[in-house]
Parts: sequence; C-alpha cells; structure tokens
Amino acid sequence: MRPVCILGAGQTPIREHWDTPIRQLAADAVLEALHSSGVARPDALYVGNMLSGELNRQENLAALIADWSGLRGIEAVKVEAACGSGAGALRLGVLAVASGMLDTVVVAGVEKMTDSFGHDTTAALATAADADYEAAHGLSFIGINALLMRRYMHEYGWRHEDFAGFSVNAHANAARNHFAMLREPVTIKQYARARMLADPINLLDAAPTGDGAAAVVLAPAERSPASVRILGSAIATDSVSLHERHDPLCLSAAVASTQAVYRQAGLGPDDVDLFELHDAFSIMSALSLEAAGFAERGQGPRMALDGQIGLRGKLPVCTMGGLKARGHPVGATGIYQVVELFLQLTRQAGENQVERARVGLAQNIGGSGATIATHLLGLPR
Amino acid sequence: MRPVCILGAGQTPIREHWDTPIRQLAADAVLEALHSSGVARPDALYVGNMLSGELNRQENLAALIADWSGLRGIEAVKVEAACGSGAGALRLGVLAVASGMLDTVVVAGVEKMTDSFGHDTTAALATAADADYEAAHGLSFIGINALLMRRYMHEYGWRHEDFAGFSVNAHANAARNHFAMLREPVTIKQYARARMLADPINLLDAAPTGDGAAAVVLAPAERSPASVRILGSAIATDSVSLHERHDPLCLSAAVASTQAVYRQAGLGPDDVDLFELHDAFSIMSALSLEAAGFAERGQGPRMALDGQIGLRGKLPVCTMGGLKARGHPVGATGIYQVVELFLQLTRQAGENQVERARVGLAQNIGGSGATIATHLLGLPR
Repeated sequence: MRPVCILGAGQTPIREHWDTPIRQLAADAVLEALHSSGVARPDALYVGNMLSGELNRQENLAALIADWSGLRGIEAVKVEAACGSGAGALRLGVLAVASGMLDTVVVAGVEKMTDSFGHDTTAALATAADADYEAAHGLSFIGINALLMRRYMHEYGWRHEDFAGFSVNAHANAARNHFAMLREPVTIKQYARARMLADPINLLDAAPTGDGAAAVVLAPAERSPASVRILGSAIATDSVSLHERHDPLCLSAAVASTQAVYRQAGLGPDDVDLFELHDAFSIMSALSLEAAGFAERGQGPRMALDGQIGLRGKLPVCTMGGLKARGHPVGATGIYQVVELFLQLTRQAGENQVERARVGLAQNIGGSGATIATHLLGLPR
Repeated sequence: MRPVCILGAGQTPIREHWDTPIRQLAADAVLEALHSSGVARPDALYVGNMLSGELNRQENLAALIADWSGLRGIEAVKVEAACGSGAGALRLGVLAVASGMLDTVVVAGVEKMTDSFGHDTTAALATAADADYEAAHGLSFIGINALLMRRYMHEYGWRHEDFAGFSVNAHANAARNHFAMLREPVTIKQYARARMLADPINLLDAAPTGDGAAAVVLAPAERSPASVRILGSAIATDSVSLHERHDPLCLSAAVASTQAVYRQAGLGPDDVDLFELHDAFSIMSALSLEAAGFAERGQGPRMALDGQIGLRGKLPVCTMGGLKARGHPVGATGIYQVVELFLQLTRQAGENQVERARVGLAQNIGGSGATIATHLLGLPR
C-alpha cells in the first residue's frame, strides 16, 4: 500500500439548518474541502451518513451529493456504521487511495436531523442498537448509555459529579469555535443541576443532535510530502447489543482499532499529542480514554478531574468542543473529528491551538461500542 | 494495486423469509461463502444494503451481521447506493484487497423487504429517487421507470410486446434455479395480458421484491491462481432525478463504468460471454445492453426479439433468472449477480450452464441510473 495524506478540509457550522437541504449542506463542506485542496474533480466521493433514509427519505445519497457538488459522474457511495459512519467512510477512502486505483477521494460526513419528515429522531437513533433485542423492548439509545454509566459508577465508585470535567472542557473549547452548536461555557455547578434525561445521564452529559457536514480530500502522500499523513486507519466491531458483551465496561472494538493504528504507525499512546474522542455521552469519554491506552481501567474520569484533558493539559481532548458542544450530526461526526485534527496539525485551530500538536488520534463510535473506527494523523517526520 | 480473485460464494434462496431475521439471512450467505472458500476469519465484512433502517429499523447492520456470523471483532461497514448497494460494497472490497492492507474480505448483500415493520415498501423504494424533486411529488420508483419506457417506445417506435423476450428469458432461466423466487416459465401471450402496474410497465415487466442474501469472499489473486478474477471494477454516477439528465435514454453511468472495466481489463464487448444485467424493469435491460456496448442506441429490444440473449444465444443474459424472476432483494442484487457469474465461470451453473463462459459482465443499477457499479469477471488466462 502507498501512504495517504489529507490535502484539505471543509466543514459547515453545526446548527438547526432548516432552510438547507441535506445535499446543500454536504456540498458546502465538499466544495470547501476541494477548494482548499486545489483539486477540481476528485476520482470518488464517499459519504458517511446514518439516517438519510429514515429522516430525509433519501437514499442514493452519495450520487445526489456528487451531482449537487458539481461532480456528476464520479464514483460515489454512502457508508453506514451508525454514529461511526463518518470515520467508516474515511477508512474506505484511505483504502481506495492506498490501492493505487484511485488518486484523490473526497470523504464527507453529513447528517440532517432537526427538521425530519415527522419522524421520531429518538426512534431513528435507536436503530444504532439491536432492533430485535434492545430497541424492540423500548430501550432508547440514551437508555443504553445510562445503563453503562450506572454500572461504571457502581463498579468503580465514581459519583455523577466526577464526570463534570468532560462537559466543562467541551463547552469551554466550543465557546471559541464558531462552527460549534453550543458555544456557552458551563460550570461544574450547572452540570450538577442540569435536567435529568435518563438517570444518571443529564442534559450536560449528552451531546446535542444537529445538522452539519464536514469533508476531507485524500491523496497519495507523495503528491504533497508536507501534508498531514494518515498514520493509521482501522475499524473493529463488537456485539451490537450490550447484554452480549462479556465485559460491557471495556470498549473492545476501541482497544482493537487503537492497537491496530498504533501498530501501523509504530507509535503508542505516549506519542499522541491530542485526542478527538467520541463524547456522545460522558461515559463514552471515560471508556474511550481507557480503551485507547491513556488511563487505567475505571480511571478515565480522573483525567478530567485532574485537568489533564484541557488545551494545556497532558492530553488535550475534544479541542474544538467535541460531540458534546460542537454538536453531533451523527454520520458527520467522524469527519468533524478528523477536520479538527487537521486544523490542529496545520496550525489553523485559532485560540484553541494545541501548541505541540504533531500527532493526533480520532475515535468514532457507532452504537454503544459496536463499530469503532480509529485514525491516527500526524505531520511527516 | 494487486489483482483480486473470488475464493468462494454463497446465497440463500430468495423468498418471503418471514421467519428469518435479517442478521440470519445474511449470516447464511456469509457462512456458506466462507466455508466454500476455506477462510475461517476474514479481515473484513462489507455489507451492501439499502433499506435496513427504513424496513427493519436496524442500522449498524454490518457489525450485527459480523457478530451473528461468528466474526465478532472484525472490520465491518454497510455500503448504500440504492439498488446498486451490493456491487457498491463489492467495489470497496476489491479496493481494500487491492490496497494490500487487507487480505480476505467477505462482501455480502442482504435485503429483507416482505414483512416490514408496518412501513410502506413502495415509499421506501422511492428513497432511491430524488426526495425533494421526484418522490415528494408522489412519483413512485416504478412511475419513474414507466416514464422512461414510454419515452423510449415513443422515440424508437417499439411496441410494448417487443419487450416480452426479456421477461420470457428471465423466467425460463429461473425455472431451473432453485434459489429463484419465481420459477414459473411465462409465455409471450401471458406477458401481453399481464396486469398493468404503471403504464406501460405491467406485472411481467417488473422484478418482484424479496428477501435474500448473497456473499463472496475476495482475496489477492496470488493466493489462488486458478480462481475467478475481478478483471475490472468501477462505479459511476449520474443525476438522481430523471429531469436533470441531458439524455435520459442513455445510462451515462453505465457507459462510463463499463468503459472503465473494459479499459482495466484490456477487453471489450466482443470478449464478454455472458451478461448479468439489472432487469428491475424491462426498459432497464434495453438501456443496459446499449450502454454496455452490445446494441446500438434504441436497439436493445432487438436482442431479445432475435433470441440473442438466451442461454445458447450470442450473449446470454440473466442466466439464473435475473432480477425479474430470481427476485430483487434490492441491496443484495448486485452480489447475487456476481455469485451467478462465479457459478457460471466455475461450471457450477447446472442446467443453465453457458458452455463457453470465460468472461462475464455484471451491472448493478441504483435508482433510475444514478449509481451504476459494473464488474468484469474472468478465468485466469
């Protein structure tokens, strides 16, 4: 295989974009990514999206977006892996360029969730869970995460307030990111008093859904030797339903995919300068930090309590606001994470710039840990 | 890139499988493909599927199928390109193996449509069309194809009965394929008298929806030098909506993807011994024959009238029954086509064996021509 780099990136603000059709949202990000890359017509477009069928009554989505982006004719498909769809599409883009059969591939993630055709977004999101053994019994997706968080607190003796740091950090970072949806900083006191959604998950533990799109352009690294490299790319899976897992408090698909990218890159957790993790719920932040090798089992919240995840901390996390405050247009999230790493590594992160950023990790989770796509990005050495 | 071969294949009968969940349907095909390949644990599973979210309330589908197939942990994603989803997934599997990053990839297609959760299958299929400019106005998917067929008849002077040969051929071939859904031969007289669905498309012009799954295992060709090769693999796109096309009677995405696979293989239409085309509607058979270089513009029906598409004809078409009579579980169809080519090329097609079969073409269409994935398969020379 040949090494792959990112030539450019684009993103839309995450908002309630009621006036913007899904094809336009995606095209905005695609065209910005192409423009910043100097690529007029890529060989292919891969689109990460979870819910266009359920919420927008639109499949054949990638062809639609290709056409609306002025790219009629090019190879295009949609990739679905629940909330991990974005990074799932990126993985396939990396393989396509690595194969040598394609030269430039634009990978976009898009989701439009807030003005759905009278459909129930909560029910749509529950399709990330096991339809027959979880959702059919009325278990919502947030309910599944609440079960996980409660068990984690029980097992390791954490109190709810111990998770506050994840939310406070994300909101603080989002306040300086004009693409973010929730730009209000929050305090520990506000976190403690937030409205309960599914005990123990309250409003400030949960990422907001939103409308948005992000895109990156991939090319062979030889084409642009100074560009940000994909040092590692991997997807791993686990059971979709929680009750099938031998150890539900270990994200085994995160362990496997993170170890795979470390192996591909010849690097380890100590080499990672910042981590865009999948904080759909606070509990996922803790589990992701542990699975990726940054904290011992059961000790994820310690990193937030000790201030290690801040922009000046040992391992800056969710540097542009994370899912929690940048917003979580589900199928787009994995690409937003990579766009944010790209901005950090190319010194375009503005007030949120992590000074020493040379290697960044992105982890995108589909379901309660069923599909996890991990990417390691870095500057050429 | 390195050449890719097919190690083995599996398929389920296409039926109304009300008692079989989608995960089990897919696993049946995956396990048969793995068993026949001698591969215990592939590196990845790519799943072609269009409607699991809409009809089965299940996304995160590929992880679910991986787990149910005993492959928990492996890389897995779903690929969507409307009715072209199956061959879309195959294309990405080919790129993955070609990259050298993965060795064995099982590519499955699955759709379960006949006992949907109270949802309307006709409305779900209309998500293959443009939601805002076609479906929102009440235009069904069969309606779009009826517009195409009417225009074609007007433009080239064909009568409805001139298309009978496509349906008669498909049903004759399906009668000898025990995986097929409709195994009754039909006559020209029955075709002429069939119930009208959307004028001029009648019941015997239209493929039946069904439940089914098919799978193939891909590997580097060097691993099995005598195996069937993927000689060419390509996807091209067009506008999703019909009214946006400059020339709606030319499947430009079929022209582009077919020319691409011919170019990759160094072959042309004269080298093709049989053609699995996407006969969702009779009109698509005609347009696909023309776009792939087998007939002049407007002359596709002539090949059926002249008996050229029969098993002993110049270009056997839909040799195991096609979408029309084998059945059309939409996201699985592209893989069924390739499984059927594999059976033909490996002399396992039973009574439907095409004697001289050495090179076969498969063309899978998403929407009314928006996404077209074409694959050329052949025996090693």
